[in-house]
Amino acid sequence: MSDLHFYPATMQELIRCLQRLPGIGARTAERLALAMLKWPKDDLAAFADRVEHLPERVQYCEECGSFADSQRCRICASSARRSDLLCVVEQPTQIASIERSGAYDGRYHVLGGRLAPLEGIGPEQLRTSQLEERVRAGDVREVILATGSDVEGEATAAFLAERLAPLGVRISRPASGIPVGADLSYADSATMATALTARRNMGEERF
Amino acid sequence: MSDLHFYPATMQELIRCLQRLPGIGARTAERLALAMLKWPKDDLAAFADRVEHLPERVQYCEECGSFADSQRCRICASSARRSDLLCVVEQPTQIASIERSGAYDGRYHVLGGRLAPLEGIGPEQLRTSQLEERVRAGDVREVILATGSDVEGEATAAFLAERLAPLGVRISRPASGIPVGADLSYADSATMATALTARRNMGEERF
Repeated sequence: MSDLHFYPATMQELIRCLQRLPGIGARTAERLALAMLKWPKDDLAAFADRVEHLPERVQYCEECGSFADSQRCRICASSARRSDLLCVVEQPTQIASIERSGAYDGRYHVLGGRLAPLEGIGPEQLRTSQLEERVRAGDVREVILATGSDVEGEATAAFLAERLAPLGVRISRPASGIPVGADLSYADSATMATALTARRNMGEERF
Repeated sequence: MSDLHFYPATMQELIRCLQRLPGIGARTAERLALAMLKWPKDDLAAFADRVEHLPERVQYCEECGSFADSQRCRICASSARRSDLLCVVEQPTQIASIERSGAYDGRYHVLGGRLAPLEGIGPEQLRTSQLEERVRAGDVREVILATGSDVEGEATAAFLAERLAPLGVRISRPASGIPVGADLSYADSATMATALTARRNMGEERF
Protein backbone atom coordinates (compact mmCIF):
# COMPACT_ATOMS: atom_id res chain seq x y z
CA MET A 1 0.00 0.00 0.00
CA SER A 2 2.82 2.35 0.88
CA ASP A 3 3.86 2.70 -2.73
CA LEU A 4 0.42 2.87 -4.32
CA HIS A 5 1.18 6.47 -5.33
CA PHE A 6 3.58 4.93 -7.84
CA TYR A 7 0.61 3.93 -10.02
CA PRO A 8 -1.44 6.33 -12.18
CA ALA A 9 -4.65 7.56 -10.54
CA THR A 10 -6.93 5.18 -12.46
CA MET A 11 -4.81 2.17 -11.41
CA GLN A 12 -4.94 3.30 -7.80
CA GLU A 13 -8.72 3.53 -7.99
CA LEU A 14 -8.98 0.07 -9.56
CA ILE A 15 -6.69 -1.38 -6.89
CA ARG A 16 -8.89 0.16 -4.17
CA CYS A 17 -12.02 -1.37 -5.78
CA LEU A 18 -10.37 -4.80 -5.92
CA GLN A 19 -9.27 -4.53 -2.29
CA ARG A 20 -12.90 -4.30 -1.21
CA LEU A 21 -13.43 -7.89 -2.37
CA PRO A 22 -13.24 -10.57 0.34
CA GLY A 23 -9.79 -12.10 0.77
CA ILE A 24 -8.10 -9.65 -1.62
CA GLY A 25 -5.31 -7.75 0.14
CA ALA A 26 -3.23 -4.83 -1.06
CA ARG A 27 -0.58 -6.93 -2.83
CA THR A 28 -3.09 -9.21 -4.56
CA ALA A 29 -5.17 -6.22 -5.71
CA GLU A 30 -2.01 -4.73 -7.22
CA ARG A 31 -1.21 -7.99 -9.00
CA LEU A 32 -4.78 -8.31 -10.37
CA ALA A 33 -4.80 -4.70 -11.62
CA LEU A 34 -1.47 -5.22 -13.40
CA ALA A 35 -2.82 -8.40 -15.01
CA MET A 36 -5.94 -6.57 -16.19
CA LEU A 37 -3.76 -3.91 -17.78
CA LYS A 38 -2.68 -6.59 -20.26
CA TRP A 39 -6.19 -7.81 -21.12
CA PRO A 40 -7.56 -7.08 -24.61
CA LYS A 41 -9.98 -4.14 -24.72
CA ASP A 42 -12.97 -6.36 -25.53
CA ASP A 43 -12.40 -8.59 -22.53
CA LEU A 44 -12.21 -5.59 -20.24
CA ALA A 45 -15.43 -4.22 -21.73
CA ALA A 46 -17.19 -7.57 -21.20
CA PHE A 47 -15.97 -7.77 -17.61
CA ALA A 48 -17.05 -4.16 -16.91
CA ASP A 49 -20.47 -4.85 -18.42
CA ARG A 50 -21.07 -7.87 -16.14
CA VAL A 51 -19.97 -5.90 -13.08
CA GLU A 52 -22.04 -2.81 -13.81
CA HIS A 53 -25.29 -4.61 -14.56
CA LEU A 54 -24.89 -7.47 -12.10
CA PRO A 55 -27.76 -6.81 -9.67
CA GLU A 56 -30.37 -5.87 -12.28
CA ARG A 57 -29.66 -8.95 -14.39
CA VAL A 58 -29.80 -11.43 -11.55
CA GLN A 59 -33.40 -12.46 -10.99
CA TYR A 60 -34.80 -14.32 -8.05
CA CYS A 61 -37.31 -17.18 -8.28
CA GLU A 62 -40.82 -16.00 -7.32
CA GLU A 63 -41.46 -19.28 -5.59
CA CYS A 64 -38.35 -20.22 -3.63
CA GLY A 65 -36.34 -16.96 -3.68
CA SER A 66 -33.20 -18.57 -5.14
CA PHE A 67 -31.26 -17.27 -8.16
CA ALA A 68 -33.17 -17.58 -11.42
CA ASP A 69 -32.78 -16.65 -15.07
CA SER A 70 -36.52 -16.10 -15.43
CA GLN A 71 -39.47 -15.91 -13.03
CA ARG A 72 -39.00 -19.43 -11.72
CA CYS A 73 -35.72 -21.18 -11.00
CA ARG A 74 -34.75 -24.45 -12.68
CA ILE A 75 -35.55 -26.51 -9.58
CA CYS A 76 -39.01 -25.00 -8.99
CA ALA A 77 -39.78 -25.38 -12.70
CA SER A 78 -38.73 -29.02 -12.78
CA SER A 79 -41.41 -31.69 -12.60
CA ALA A 80 -38.78 -34.23 -11.52
CA ARG A 81 -38.47 -32.73 -8.03
CA ARG A 82 -40.70 -33.90 -5.17
CA SER A 83 -43.17 -31.24 -4.10
CA ASP A 84 -43.95 -32.80 -0.72
CA LEU A 85 -40.44 -32.09 0.61
CA LEU A 86 -39.27 -28.52 1.29
CA CYS A 87 -35.76 -27.60 2.43
CA VAL A 88 -35.37 -24.17 4.05
CA VAL A 89 -31.96 -22.50 3.65
CA GLU A 90 -30.57 -19.08 4.51
CA GLN A 91 -28.94 -18.25 1.15
CA PRO A 92 -29.07 -19.55 -2.44
CA THR A 93 -25.45 -20.68 -2.18
CA GLN A 94 -26.43 -23.32 0.36
CA ILE A 95 -28.67 -24.87 -2.29
CA ALA A 96 -25.58 -25.39 -4.46
CA SER A 97 -23.94 -27.30 -1.62
CA ILE A 98 -27.00 -29.49 -1.00
CA GLU A 99 -27.42 -30.16 -4.73
CA ARG A 100 -23.78 -31.23 -4.94
CA SER A 101 -24.47 -33.92 -2.33
CA GLY A 102 -26.97 -35.55 -4.68
CA ALA A 103 -28.95 -36.67 -1.61
CA TYR A 104 -31.98 -34.42 -2.03
CA ASP A 105 -34.74 -34.43 -4.63
CA GLY A 106 -37.25 -32.05 -3.04
CA ARG A 107 -37.68 -28.31 -3.42
CA TYR A 108 -36.16 -25.34 -1.60
CA HIS A 109 -37.15 -22.16 0.19
CA VAL A 110 -34.60 -19.37 0.62
CA LEU A 111 -35.09 -17.19 3.73
CA GLY A 112 -32.64 -14.53 2.58
CA GLY A 113 -30.79 -14.56 5.89
CA ARG A 114 -31.21 -15.53 9.52
CA LEU A 115 -32.87 -13.95 12.55
CA ALA A 116 -30.51 -11.34 14.04
CA PRO A 117 -32.51 -9.01 16.29
CA LEU A 118 -29.44 -6.91 17.14
CA GLU A 119 -28.98 -6.14 13.42
CA GLY A 120 -32.68 -5.43 13.04
CA ILE A 121 -33.39 -8.64 11.13
CA GLY A 122 -36.68 -10.04 12.36
CA PRO A 123 -39.14 -12.49 10.71
CA GLU A 124 -40.50 -9.64 8.52
CA GLN A 125 -37.08 -9.10 6.93
CA LEU A 126 -36.91 -12.77 5.93
CA ARG A 127 -39.17 -14.74 3.61
CA THR A 128 -41.00 -16.42 6.51
CA SER A 129 -44.60 -15.55 5.61
CA GLN A 130 -43.97 -16.82 2.06
CA LEU A 131 -42.76 -20.07 3.65
CA GLU A 132 -45.94 -20.43 5.70
CA GLU A 133 -48.03 -19.69 2.61
CA ARG A 134 -46.21 -22.33 0.57
CA VAL A 135 -46.63 -24.93 3.30
CA ARG A 136 -50.29 -24.02 3.74
CA ALA A 137 -51.10 -23.94 0.02
CA GLY A 138 -49.12 -26.89 -1.29
CA ASP A 139 -48.91 -30.58 -0.62
CA VAL A 140 -45.79 -30.24 1.57
CA ARG A 141 -45.48 -33.06 4.06
CA GLU A 142 -42.01 -32.39 5.49
CA VAL A 143 -40.01 -29.23 6.00
CA ILE A 144 -36.25 -29.63 6.53
CA LEU A 145 -34.89 -26.60 8.37
CA ALA A 146 -31.36 -26.40 6.94
CA THR A 147 -30.34 -23.10 8.52
CA GLY A 148 -26.78 -22.86 9.89
CA SER A 149 -25.70 -25.05 12.78
CA ASP A 150 -24.42 -22.05 14.77
CA VAL A 151 -26.38 -20.15 17.43
CA GLU A 152 -28.26 -17.83 15.05
CA GLY A 153 -29.05 -20.68 12.67
CA GLU A 154 -30.40 -22.81 15.53
CA ALA A 155 -32.50 -19.90 16.82
CA THR A 156 -33.92 -19.31 13.34
CA ALA A 157 -34.74 -23.02 13.01
CA ALA A 158 -36.42 -23.05 16.46
CA PHE A 159 -38.49 -19.99 15.54
CA LEU A 160 -39.62 -21.52 12.23
CA ALA A 161 -40.39 -24.89 13.85
CA GLU A 162 -42.76 -23.14 16.23
CA ARG A 163 -44.42 -21.15 13.44
CA LEU A 164 -44.88 -24.24 11.26
CA ALA A 165 -46.03 -26.60 14.04
CA PRO A 166 -49.77 -25.71 13.74
CA LEU A 167 -49.70 -26.58 10.03
CA GLY A 168 -49.36 -30.30 10.71
CA VAL A 169 -46.21 -31.00 8.67
CA ARG A 170 -43.23 -33.03 9.74
CA ILE A 171 -40.36 -30.73 10.72
CA SER A 172 -36.75 -31.94 10.64
CA ARG A 173 -33.21 -30.63 10.79
CA PRO A 174 -30.03 -32.07 9.17
CA ALA A 175 -27.98 -34.17 11.62
CA SER A 176 -25.06 -32.56 13.45
CA GLY A 177 -21.93 -34.58 14.12
CA ILE A 178 -18.42 -35.48 13.08
CA PRO A 179 -17.82 -34.63 9.38
CA VAL A 180 -17.42 -37.77 7.24
CA GLY A 181 -13.75 -38.62 6.80
CA ALA A 182 -12.61 -36.40 9.67
CA ASP A 183 -10.20 -37.40 12.43
CA LEU A 184 -11.95 -37.25 15.80
CA SER A 185 -8.87 -35.58 17.31
CA TYR A 186 -9.73 -32.38 15.52
CA ALA A 187 -13.45 -32.21 16.37
CA ASP A 188 -14.37 -29.18 18.48
CA SER A 189 -16.00 -30.04 21.81
CA ALA A 190 -19.48 -28.81 20.86
CA THR A 191 -19.51 -31.04 17.77
CA MET A 192 -18.12 -33.96 19.77
CA ALA A 193 -20.79 -33.55 22.49
CA THR A 194 -23.54 -33.43 19.84
CA ALA A 195 -22.12 -36.47 18.03
CA LEU A 196 -21.97 -38.50 21.26
CA THR A 197 -25.45 -37.50 22.46
CA ALA A 198 -27.00 -38.28 19.08
CA ARG A 199 -25.00 -41.53 18.64
CA ARG A 200 -26.44 -44.21 16.40
CA ASN A 201 -26.94 -47.78 17.48
CA MET A 202 -24.90 -50.25 15.40
CA GLY A 203 -25.83 -53.87 14.87
CA GLU A 204 -28.51 -55.57 17.03
CA GLU A 205 -29.95 -53.84 20.06
CA ARG A 206 -28.08 -55.33 23.01
CA PHE A 207 -27.94 -52.59 25.65
CA MET B 1 -17.04 -25.44 -11.32
CA SER B 2 -19.30 -28.46 -11.54
CA ASP B 3 -22.25 -26.54 -10.13
CA LEU B 4 -21.73 -23.25 -11.95
CA HIS B 5 -24.98 -23.90 -13.83
CA PHE B 6 -26.68 -23.19 -10.51
CA TYR B 7 -26.01 -19.48 -11.02
CA PRO B 8 -27.90 -17.19 -13.41
CA ALA B 9 -26.16 -16.66 -16.78
CA THR B 10 -24.79 -13.22 -15.89
CA MET B 11 -23.23 -14.56 -12.66
CA GLN B 12 -21.65 -17.43 -14.60
CA GLU B 13 -20.16 -14.93 -17.05
CA LEU B 14 -18.82 -12.77 -14.24
CA ILE B 15 -17.32 -15.81 -12.52
CA ARG B 16 -15.59 -16.78 -15.77
CA CYS B 17 -14.15 -13.25 -16.12
CA LEU B 18 -12.82 -13.34 -12.56
CA GLN B 19 -11.26 -16.76 -13.11
CA ARG B 20 -9.05 -15.32 -15.82
CA LEU B 21 -7.24 -13.24 -13.19
CA PRO B 22 -3.97 -14.70 -11.88
CA GLY B 23 -4.35 -16.82 -8.74
CA ILE B 24 -8.16 -16.72 -8.82
CA GLY B 25 -9.58 -20.25 -8.97
CA ALA B 26 -13.16 -21.42 -9.50
CA ARG B 27 -14.15 -21.28 -5.81
CA THR B 28 -12.61 -17.85 -5.21
CA ALA B 29 -14.22 -16.45 -8.36
CA GLU B 30 -17.59 -17.70 -7.07
CA ARG B 31 -17.00 -16.07 -3.69
CA LEU B 32 -15.98 -12.75 -5.26
CA ALA B 33 -19.02 -12.71 -7.57
CA LEU B 34 -21.35 -13.38 -4.63
CA ALA B 35 -19.71 -10.56 -2.66
CA MET B 36 -20.12 -8.17 -5.58
CA LEU B 37 -23.81 -9.05 -5.75
CA LYS B 38 -24.16 -7.25 -2.39
CA TRP B 39 -22.27 -4.10 -3.43
CA PRO B 40 -24.23 -0.85 -3.83
CA LYS B 41 -25.06 0.05 -7.42
CA ASP B 42 -22.76 3.09 -7.42
CA ASP B 43 -19.74 1.07 -6.29
CA LEU B 44 -20.33 -1.48 -9.04
CA ALA B 45 -20.62 1.31 -11.60
CA ALA B 46 -17.35 2.88 -10.37
CA PHE B 47 -15.58 -0.49 -10.51
CA ALA B 48 -16.92 -1.20 -14.01
CA ASP B 49 -15.82 2.23 -15.18
CA ARG B 50 -12.23 1.68 -13.99
CA VAL B 51 -12.10 -1.75 -15.63
CA GLU B 52 -13.54 -0.66 -18.96
CA HIS B 53 -11.34 2.39 -19.43
CA LEU B 54 -8.20 1.03 -17.80
CA PRO B 55 -5.77 0.89 -20.75
CA GLU B 56 -6.76 4.22 -22.31
CA ARG B 57 -6.44 6.09 -19.00
CA VAL B 58 -3.05 4.68 -18.10
CA GLN B 59 -0.38 6.80 -19.75
CA TYR B 60 3.27 5.99 -20.10
CA CYS B 61 6.08 8.46 -19.53
CA GLU B 62 7.55 9.67 -22.83
CA GLU B 63 11.00 9.67 -21.34
CA CYS B 64 11.38 6.50 -19.27
CA GLY B 65 8.36 4.43 -20.35
CA SER B 66 7.02 3.94 -16.82
CA PHE B 67 3.42 4.60 -15.69
CA ALA B 68 2.48 8.26 -15.74
CA ASP B 69 -0.55 10.47 -15.14
CA SER B 70 0.61 12.95 -17.77
CA GLN B 71 3.34 12.99 -20.45
CA ARG B 72 6.17 12.64 -17.95
CA CYS B 73 6.22 10.50 -14.84
CA ARG B 74 6.82 11.97 -11.38
CA ILE B 75 10.41 10.72 -11.27
CA CYS B 76 11.41 12.09 -14.69
CA ALA B 77 9.70 15.40 -13.83
CA SER B 78 11.49 15.71 -10.50
CA SER B 79 14.55 17.96 -10.29
CA ALA B 80 15.62 16.17 -7.11
CA ARG B 81 16.67 13.05 -9.00
CA ARG B 82 20.20 12.65 -10.34
CA SER B 83 20.31 12.74 -14.12
CA ASP B 84 23.75 11.16 -14.43
CA LEU B 85 22.54 7.78 -13.13
CA LEU B 86 20.15 5.64 -15.19
CA CYS B 87 18.66 2.35 -14.00
CA VAL B 88 17.29 0.02 -16.70
CA VAL B 89 14.41 -2.27 -15.65
CA GLU B 90 12.13 -4.67 -17.51
CA GLN B 91 8.79 -3.47 -16.16
CA PRO B 92 7.43 -0.40 -14.30
CA THR B 93 6.63 -2.58 -11.25
CA GLN B 94 10.33 -3.13 -10.68
CA ILE B 95 10.71 0.62 -10.20
CA ALA B 96 8.29 0.41 -7.27
CA SER B 97 10.49 -2.20 -5.65
CA ILE B 98 13.68 -0.17 -6.16
CA GLU B 99 11.99 3.01 -4.88
CA ARG B 100 10.87 1.14 -1.75
CA SER B 101 14.53 0.36 -0.97
CA GLY B 102 15.26 4.08 -0.69
CA ALA B 103 18.78 3.36 -1.98
CA TYR B 104 18.48 4.99 -5.40
CA ASP B 105 18.13 8.62 -6.38
CA GLY B 106 18.78 8.44 -10.13
CA ARG B 107 16.37 8.02 -13.01
CA TYR B 108 14.91 4.95 -14.74
CA HIS B 109 14.43 3.45 -18.17
CA VAL B 110 11.76 0.80 -18.74
CA LEU B 111 12.52 -1.73 -21.49
CA GLY B 112 8.99 -3.12 -21.57
CA GLY B 113 10.20 -6.72 -21.31
CA ARG B 114 13.28 -8.84 -21.90
CA LEU B 115 14.88 -10.44 -24.93
CA ALA B 116 13.09 -13.69 -25.76
CA PRO B 117 13.92 -14.71 -29.34
CA LEU B 118 11.71 -17.81 -29.14
CA GLU B 119 8.71 -15.59 -28.39
CA GLY B 120 9.70 -13.16 -31.12
CA ILE B 121 10.88 -10.47 -28.71
CA GLY B 122 14.04 -8.92 -30.10
CA PRO B 123 15.72 -5.54 -29.42
CA GLU B 124 13.15 -3.82 -31.71
CA GLN B 125 10.26 -4.94 -29.51
CA LEU B 126 11.91 -3.37 -26.46
CA ARG B 127 12.76 0.29 -25.80
CA THR B 128 16.47 -0.26 -26.54
CA SER B 129 17.01 2.46 -29.15
CA GLN B 130 15.34 5.00 -26.83
CA LEU B 131 17.83 3.91 -24.17
CA GLU B 132 20.78 4.49 -26.48
CA GLU B 133 19.38 7.89 -27.46
CA ARG B 134 18.96 8.92 -23.82
CA VAL B 135 22.50 7.86 -22.96
CA ARG B 136 23.86 9.61 -26.04
CA ALA B 137 21.88 12.83 -25.55
CA GLY B 138 22.02 13.28 -21.81
CA ASP B 139 24.67 13.65 -19.16
CA VAL B 140 24.40 9.98 -18.10
CA ARG B 141 27.61 8.70 -16.53
CA GLU B 142 26.48 5.29 -15.27
CA VAL B 143 23.85 2.83 -16.47
CA ILE B 144 22.71 0.17 -13.97
CA LEU B 145 21.31 -2.83 -15.85
CA ALA B 146 18.67 -4.05 -13.38
CA THR B 147 17.05 -6.69 -15.56
CA GLY B 148 16.11 -10.00 -13.89
CA SER B 149 18.80 -12.24 -12.42
CA ASP B 150 17.57 -15.26 -14.37
CA VAL B 151 18.90 -16.49 -17.71
CA GLU B 152 16.79 -14.16 -19.90
CA GLY B 153 17.52 -11.19 -17.66
CA GLU B 154 21.26 -11.89 -17.77
CA ALA B 155 21.16 -12.26 -21.56
CA THR B 156 19.29 -8.98 -21.92
CA ALA B 157 21.82 -7.23 -19.65
CA ALA B 158 24.74 -8.70 -21.64
CA PHE B 159 23.19 -7.53 -24.91
CA LEU B 160 22.64 -3.99 -23.58
CA ALA B 161 26.13 -3.82 -22.06
CA GLU B 162 27.57 -4.54 -25.49
CA ARG B 163 25.34 -1.96 -27.18
CA LEU B 164 26.18 0.74 -24.62
CA ALA B 165 29.92 0.04 -24.41
CA PRO B 166 30.89 2.38 -27.31
CA LEU B 167 29.09 5.27 -25.57
CA GLY B 168 31.71 5.52 -22.88
CA VAL B 169 29.47 5.23 -19.82
CA ARG B 170 30.10 3.09 -16.76
CA ILE B 171 27.88 -0.02 -16.92
CA SER B 172 26.96 -1.92 -13.76
CA ARG B 173 24.60 -4.60 -12.54
CA PRO B 174 23.05 -5.05 -9.05
CA ALA B 175 24.98 -7.57 -6.91
CA SER B 176 23.72 -11.16 -6.78
CA GLY B 177 24.01 -13.09 -3.51
CA ILE B 178 22.33 -14.30 -0.35
CA PRO B 179 19.22 -12.20 0.43
CA VAL B 180 19.67 -10.05 3.56
CA GLY B 181 18.24 -11.81 6.62
CA ALA B 182 18.12 -15.20 4.93
CA ASP B 183 19.40 -18.47 6.42
CA LEU B 184 22.21 -19.87 4.24
CA SER B 185 20.68 -23.34 4.56
CA TYR B 186 17.91 -22.35 2.20
CA ALA B 187 20.01 -20.67 -0.51
CA ASP B 188 19.85 -22.44 -3.86
CA SER B 189 23.21 -23.63 -5.19
CA ALA B 190 23.40 -21.07 -8.03
CA THR B 191 22.92 -18.19 -5.57
CA MET B 192 25.40 -19.76 -3.14
CA ALA B 193 28.02 -20.18 -5.88
CA THR B 194 27.57 -16.55 -6.96
CA ALA B 195 27.75 -15.31 -3.37
CA LEU B 196 30.97 -17.23 -2.71
CA THR B 197 32.65 -16.20 -5.94
CA ALA B 198 31.77 -12.54 -5.40
CA ARG B 199 32.65 -12.62 -1.70
CA ARG B 200 33.61 -9.33 -0.02
CA ASN B 201 36.77 -8.87 1.95
CA MET B 202 36.12 -8.00 5.60
CA GLY B 203 38.54 -6.01 7.76
CA GLU B 204 42.14 -5.45 6.62
CA GLU B 205 43.56 -7.27 3.65
CA ARG B 206 45.56 -10.13 5.15
CA PHE B 207 45.48 -12.86 2.51
